[in-house]
Amino acid sequence: MSKDVKIVTIGGGSSYTPELVEGFIKRYDSLPVRELWLVDIPEGQEKLETVGGLAKRMIKEAGLPIDVHLTLDRREALKDADFVTTQLRVGLLEARAKDERIPLKYGVIGQETNGPGGLFKGLRTIPVILDIVKDMEELCPNAWLINFTNPAGMVTEAVLRHSDWKKIIGLCNVPVGMKMGIADQLGVDPERIQIDFAGLNHMIYGLNVYLDGEIYTDQYIEKIASGDVSSGTMRNIVDLKWEPDFLKALQAIPCPYHRYYYKTSEMFEEESKAAAEEGTRAEVVQKLEKDLFELYKDEDLTIKPPQLEERGGAYYSDAACSLIDSIYNDRRDIQPVNTINNGAIASIPDDSAVEINSVITKEGPKPIAIGDLPVATRGLVQQIKSFERVAAEAAVTGNYQTALLAMTINPLVPSDIIAKEILDEMLKAHQEYLPQFQNN
Amino acid sequence: MSKDVKIVTIGGGSSYTPELVEGFIKRYDSLPVRELWLVDIPEGQEKLETVGGLAKRMIKEAGLPIDVHLTLDRREALKDADFVTTQLRVGLLEARAKDERIPLKYGVIGQETNGPGGLFKGLRTIPVILDIVKDMEELCPNAWLINFTNPAGMVTEAVLRHSDWKKIIGLCNVPVGMKMGIADQLGVDPERIQIDFAGLNHMIYGLNVYLDGEIYTDQYIEKIASGDVSSGTMRNIVDLKWEPDFLKALQAIPCPYHRYYYKTSEMFEEESKAAAEEGTRAEVVQKLEKDLFELYKDEDLTIKPPQLEERGGAYYSDAACSLIDSIYNDRRDIQPVNTINNGAIASIPDDSAVEINSVITKEGPKPIAIGDLPVATRGLVQQIKSFERVAAEAAVTGNYQTALLAMTINPLVPSDIIAKEILDEMLKAHQEYLPQFQNN
Amino acid sequence: MSKDVKIVTIGGGSSYTPELVEGFIKRYDSLPVRELWLVDIPEGQEKLETVGGLAKRMIKEAGLPIDVHLTLDRREALKDADFVTTQLRVGLLEARAKDERIPLKYGVIGQETNGPGGLFKGLRTIPVILDIVKDMEELCPNAWLINFTNPAGMVTEAVLRHSDWKKIIGLCNVPVGMKMGIADQLGVDPERIQIDFAGLNHMIYGLNVYLDGEIYTDQYIEKIASGDVSSGTMRNIVDLKWEPDFLKALQAIPCPYHRYYYKTSEMFEEESKAAAEEGTRAEVVQKLEKDLFELYKDEDLTIKPPQLEERGGAYYSDAACSLIDSIYNDRRDIQPVNTINNGAIASIPDDSAVEINSVITKEGPKPIAIGDLPVATRGLVQQIKSFERVAAEAAVTGNYQTALLAMTINPLVPSDIIAKEILDEMLKAHQEYLPQFQNN
Amino acid sequence: MSKDVKIVTIGGGSSYTPELVEGFIKRYDSLPVRELWLVDIPEGQEKLETVGGLAKRMIKEAGLPIDVHLTLDRREALKDADFVTTQLRVGLLEARAKDERIPLKYGVIGQETNGPGGLFKGLRTIPVILDIVKDMEELCPNAWLINFTNPAGMVTEAVLRHSDWKKIIGLCNVPVGMKMGIADQLGVDPERIQIDFAGLNHMIYGLNVYLDGEIYTDQYIEKIASGDVSSGTMRNIVDLKWEPDFLKALQAIPCPYHRYYYKTSEMFEEESKAAAEEGTRAEVVQKLEKDLFELYKDEDLTIKPPQLEERGGAYYSDAACSLIDSIYNDRRDIQPVNTINNGAIASIPDDSAVEINSVITKEGPKPIAIGDLPVATRGLVQQIKSFERVAAEAAVTGNYQTALLAMTINPLVPSDIIAKEILDEMLKAHQEYLPQFQNN
Repeated sequence: MSKDVKIVTIGGGSSYTPELVEGFIKRYDSLPVRELWLVDIPEGQEKLETVGGLAKRMIKEAGLPIDVHLTLDRREALKDADFVTTQLRVGLLEARAKDERIPLKYGVIGQETNGPGGLFKGLRTIPVILDIVKDMEELCPNAWLINFTNPAGMVTEAVLRHSDWKKIIGLCNVPVGMKMGIADQLGVDPERIQIDFAGLNHMIYGLNVYLDGEIYTDQYIEKIASGDVSSGTMRNIVDLKWEPDFLKALQAIPCPYHRYYYKTSEMFEEESKAAAEEGTRAEVVQKLEKDLFELYKDEDLTIKPPQLEERGGAYYSDAACSLIDSIYNDRRDIQPVNTINNGAIASIPDDSAVEINSVITKEGPKPIAIGDLPVATRGLVQQIKSFERVAAEAAVTGNYQTALLAMTINPLVPSDIIAKEILDEMLKAHQEYLPQFQNN
Repeated sequence: MSKDVKIVTIGGGSSYTPELVEGFIKRYDSLPVRELWLVDIPEGQEKLETVGGLAKRMIKEAGLPIDVHLTLDRREALKDADFVTTQLRVGLLEARAKDERIPLKYGVIGQETNGPGGLFKGLRTIPVILDIVKDMEELCPNAWLINFTNPAGMVTEAVLRHSDWKKIIGLCNVPVGMKMGIADQLGVDPERIQIDFAGLNHMIYGLNVYLDGEIYTDQYIEKIASGDVSSGTMRNIVDLKWEPDFLKALQAIPCPYHRYYYKTSEMFEEESKAAAEEGTRAEVVQKLEKDLFELYKDEDLTIKPPQLEERGGAYYSDAACSLIDSIYNDRRDIQPVNTINNGAIASIPDDSAVEINSVITKEGPKPIAIGDLPVATRGLVQQIKSFERVAAEAAVTGNYQTALLAMTINPLVPSDIIAKEILDEMLKAHQEYLPQFQNN
Repeated sequence: MSKDVKIVTIGGGSSYTPELVEGFIKRYDSLPVRELWLVDIPEGQEKLETVGGLAKRMIKEAGLPIDVHLTLDRREALKDADFVTTQLRVGLLEARAKDERIPLKYGVIGQETNGPGGLFKGLRTIPVILDIVKDMEELCPNAWLINFTNPAGMVTEAVLRHSDWKKIIGLCNVPVGMKMGIADQLGVDPERIQIDFAGLNHMIYGLNVYLDGEIYTDQYIEKIASGDVSSGTMRNIVDLKWEPDFLKALQAIPCPYHRYYYKTSEMFEEESKAAAEEGTRAEVVQKLEKDLFELYKDEDLTIKPPQLEERGGAYYSDAACSLIDSIYNDRRDIQPVNTINNGAIASIPDDSAVEINSVITKEGPKPIAIGDLPVATRGLVQQIKSFERVAAEAAVTGNYQTALLAMTINPLVPSDIIAKEILDEMLKAHQEYLPQFQNN
Repeated sequence: MSKDVKIVTIGGGSSYTPELVEGFIKRYDSLPVRELWLVDIPEGQEKLETVGGLAKRMIKEAGLPIDVHLTLDRREALKDADFVTTQLRVGLLEARAKDERIPLKYGVIGQETNGPGGLFKGLRTIPVILDIVKDMEELCPNAWLINFTNPAGMVTEAVLRHSDWKKIIGLCNVPVGMKMGIADQLGVDPERIQIDFAGLNHMIYGLNVYLDGEIYTDQYIEKIASGDVSSGTMRNIVDLKWEPDFLKALQAIPCPYHRYYYKTSEMFEEESKAAAEEGTRAEVVQKLEKDLFELYKDEDLTIKPPQLEERGGAYYSDAACSLIDSIYNDRRDIQPVNTINNGAIASIPDDSAVEINSVITKEGPKPIAIGDLPVATRGLVQQIKSFERVAAEAAVTGNYQTALLAMTINPLVPSDIIAKEILDEMLKAHQEYLPQFQNN
């Protein structure tokens, strides 16, 4: 690895980019980024220039010698990159809005990561990521691909299973958000909290919580159960309370997304109501983004605006920059990432992607073996893993039946017939982004 | 094993008993049953005498030296038994009716085997079976326990995991019913059909169908998909059609009970309608049984009446007597049974019960290794296995939270809150049969 | 499969062929062989004609319409075959003699299957088998390859791992020999004995012995330990007694070849003495074969001569013809064969070859899951599996270092330095049969 | 955990103790040891007082408030301990000398850890450790047991499998010695070297070596192969060179003890020669220890004398004190220790002890998943694991046959007959320390 670091961010015109830039600025001493390439597609050029302008001002304000390049030429950018981050959104937020709205019509939550919406986000995204990987094999074979693009678990699975590229890490802000939330609830410094994370992306459990190194799981669950603290959630997921006795029996901390599976009917009500009132999450975000970009355009703005946190990507910067920093410096610290299981979780195949606490080294993440997940959680986790695998296969093959199979086995979808109805409407709605399904 | 065989049937007053008696009569040459003990509880004495009378007349008609004993004293019956079959029903059909009706009120299918109803059937039944096992350890330690009592998978899991008794086999008529159904649909002798069965009880797949030893799976699926043949079902499950493309992608033959999971919303509609009209299955069966027992009382009846098949237990006799015969004679033929996995299915723990094609020997069933289930099916199967394990633990411990956990993770139950509502109402409704929960 | 069966036997000029022919004659009613093609190489033409002549006379004597074809053109023979059996010997018995003699010079047993000799037999044989497989893919893609050629475990592993051909079964007469030996020792009909076989080729254990379906393992071990019965061996392995306390603790029946590993020093003494006196096994067999071929030439001979049993291949005919018959007729009976593990033995990788009791169907063998081997045996079995895998890789790649690794990890070889000495001398001695190593 | 740390060292009269004391002194700021209890048996009282005196002087010289207690009352010492370290030697060096000498008479290396000598060291030691564990359950249930006593792998396995105590960590100086040796050979600071350690105690491999975080394995192997650097060994193992081509093919760094298995014949020669000349290692150490204790008696000595390094325990202090410090401070750094596998190495059972890089937390070590060991190494590793398990069972049960089985399956022992001869002589020689075998 060259001493000076070259970062390429695909989907660089995203509103998240200032998070990343802030992270690189903060860590410059240990992670000397020399070049930051922000790549986007023609449709995103305006945003790219807005965000890129802000990025340049932020760096200038910090007085650092980081060159920011804005380009639509992905291959030019990738040449000799050290780290490639992907935060692209095929079909933009309009597509996400469809992912969320169409299933609702059939009485089903869309859920843009592990639900029917996530299936379609995967179908649109995976071929693009596999194309990027092909370019990387040629142009920067030693680089690491750090994928933030959802569905991050499915994308990681797809790259591991359907390409020869092994240097991929899927990254999510859910685990760090859980940690921060717990620290906040307990009123302690986050440094004092440790969590044994294991599961899948957006299907991750905190198997144990530690306070100052001592197990604190039962006490924490007791606090949630008694209502002393909130069970925690994220900006984009309504904070429905867990049934206390369920939580005590589970003996693990669910992540905010688990509400979709353990509170399906209540979440459906919430999402339906939201869709009818303020709009689906995508629609809310579209508005937020519009406001953000207005802010970004302000030539006097030279820092990440605080409003960005409303957007929902809190801690992404920290998670991503920490990860890159730990790889670059071979820190061997522990971070929860999406990587190959390698036996760390017994009931998931060794060659599948899991989201798990891993030691981060210059040679990549090494997952910490947990034995197995609690009995009660294995089925749901394996069901999402089956869904991810079948969905990834559908994305690669463009096979209609395989896509229907993925839709039908999704735990949010209540029957093969409804699965087909949703599938057919969504295939049509997204057809311009699904060339692999044109022959069906 | 003594040359003369002693069979003990617990729940001997069941309407199914004439099936068994017919099976023993047919196989007498190779399986010389000398004593048949029908055991029941005081509440069942009248039925026991009715059924016992018919059994005696059937045997007399056949001219065989089989002694039929009717008793309420289980321990007397068990002494030196060779095979013990269990077909008991704690709380009788009244309890089953509650298992089916109460969940419907909350928008949830009851499903008396793998659903919320099955959870309660397990909670009532498992302690009784574990008591029987304790008696067997003392009174007939060399006997085999052949359990027909539902939920047969959960009961087998409970005995394997919560007792030291290893000589248990769970038996179900679903696989043989699938085989007969396929033969019937194809218009061929059932002998010409072979099926690679693997999965769990009421969650079993035909991984491959063979006609005359050659793989016929795709052709058979094609026939179902094109509507040439029915996908097959059982007396108690409405024959909703599979979505053809789903079936083709699944690349395995689901069992009739899979409709509850792959067609949840349609099945809920059907069950609700039935409950409102002709009554739930339990209520229908109550009427059928009443008629059957009237028939049984007829002193001129000396054979199994054909009306019994309506009852839904078709092939139980064949399955059970074949199994006992193969054990007794060390036939080493292949039968699908519930037994310890031992690595036969990779994604199920080695020490859990599975329902799988096994070689039947005098030393018990030896499962045939399949590698693993198709990817798409693993999650659902593992989810039911998690449910069975947590439910079995709740049955043994009487722990309320554990029961709530089992209810919540059941794939038919849409949330922790609804789970608690159903649980609470059912615990109350069944309280006389759930002494282990009295302290909660 | 065509109704008339076409068998191709590669290495048809082998002295074993009359065994096979006898087997096909005996089973003609259920296995209607219409064509038997005996294939050999130019150096074997004379033997091929001698054996072929006897085969034709045997069939004529039996009055059966089986056409025997003798040919040096393998591809002509393979066209549309139903079963291909391989019993070839690259380098003939001269090569085997070297496999046995060279290691002895270094204080090491040669052991032509799992020892240093076996490594070289594998290096010579595997490329030839992979060539045959390539022809089969083209000329008879539906045929089964039944491989008798040693080292049968390593060859099966090599085909499974280094080709796309899955329809291979490795066959050995050791298990059937053990069964016959036990029946003989106990003075009972072999039909009354069943054995749970599991392990690897020439490294197989009888995990349990049954007499009339009841476990008889301890009694049988007791009989061996007390000297009441012989522990049994084969024509080619001297019958050294097992240490009784070792056998009782092992709680499994070792196969005759296990003497090489559990009695290495005594076996080395025996083999050294034999080499100095009557000659190594290859040298003895060379003489036996010469005599056999003299017999075969006798135009009046129309049956398999009884002297063939001295040769050591007893029961090969039965094993091979039974296997082919069970596949052809989809018998679903149990036979011990070398096939893919698929989870049947926990401590062997799922995708490796094992030798194990399997249900034999028209679609191939389905191994019966045993859970795991006894703890005490796992290491040795895994060591031979590691050896087989590394040896197979060396055979395919012709990599010198890989061959040295295989030699060094073989449990009979006491050091890396001695391994290199043996390897170097044997590579030179066999160089004409090891073209893949010419570039080293 | 109390803020002030109480350490109990069983076998406190060992010559190693000053290493430990030095370690605690160095780390006092982060690991505030307040009490150090040195426990020994009556036969060791004199040494205990000598070593204890030195310990007190060292602490006084350092000016630290650590109380050193010398006692023969183990139970008094254990009360409320935080960490218990075990470095006892049942039968003292006299017993080790027998472990080494007796097998040599039969042509077999004794090897006091994984060989026949190790079997006997295990038989003597395991019951004592299990007694200590029983005391700990009662007197200090929250303490960690850090076991240095060899055979450390077998002892860890025995405690995990034959007691309910889970808070045991087995510790060995081999991995740290390998790291230090490599750094020394390369002339770099040890901080710059990282090694992926995995395997079993004294059977551990460096799967990869990193220099400054980048993989350096091939270059390092190349350097050893070319003779540029030594392959490294320990004070007690002669530095026989690895065959370069073997090493290159192995693609992993063996540990010094691997010479016993990959160079058995040469090691036997060396050990025989040593036994005939300067004496076995035990005999050499006896002399060294005598000299050391003379030094320790010097009232002017207030530091660890440099001669202690000759003794062979280099880095034990660092390894042990680092481990305790990381647990105490929840450092979550990576250290190679003996702990439960939990799926980290696929071909070792999940519930067995392995020696592997682990993240060290206040709640104990968490092994880092490696997938599996290289194919070529699995058999030998599994063989030692089988040996350890059978040996542990023999130690607990005192069963003669089980002990014979352990001896026979040890890879250094060439036959069941020789195994019995060695076993019988050793059982007699050590009988006073093997009360569990008195009834055989």
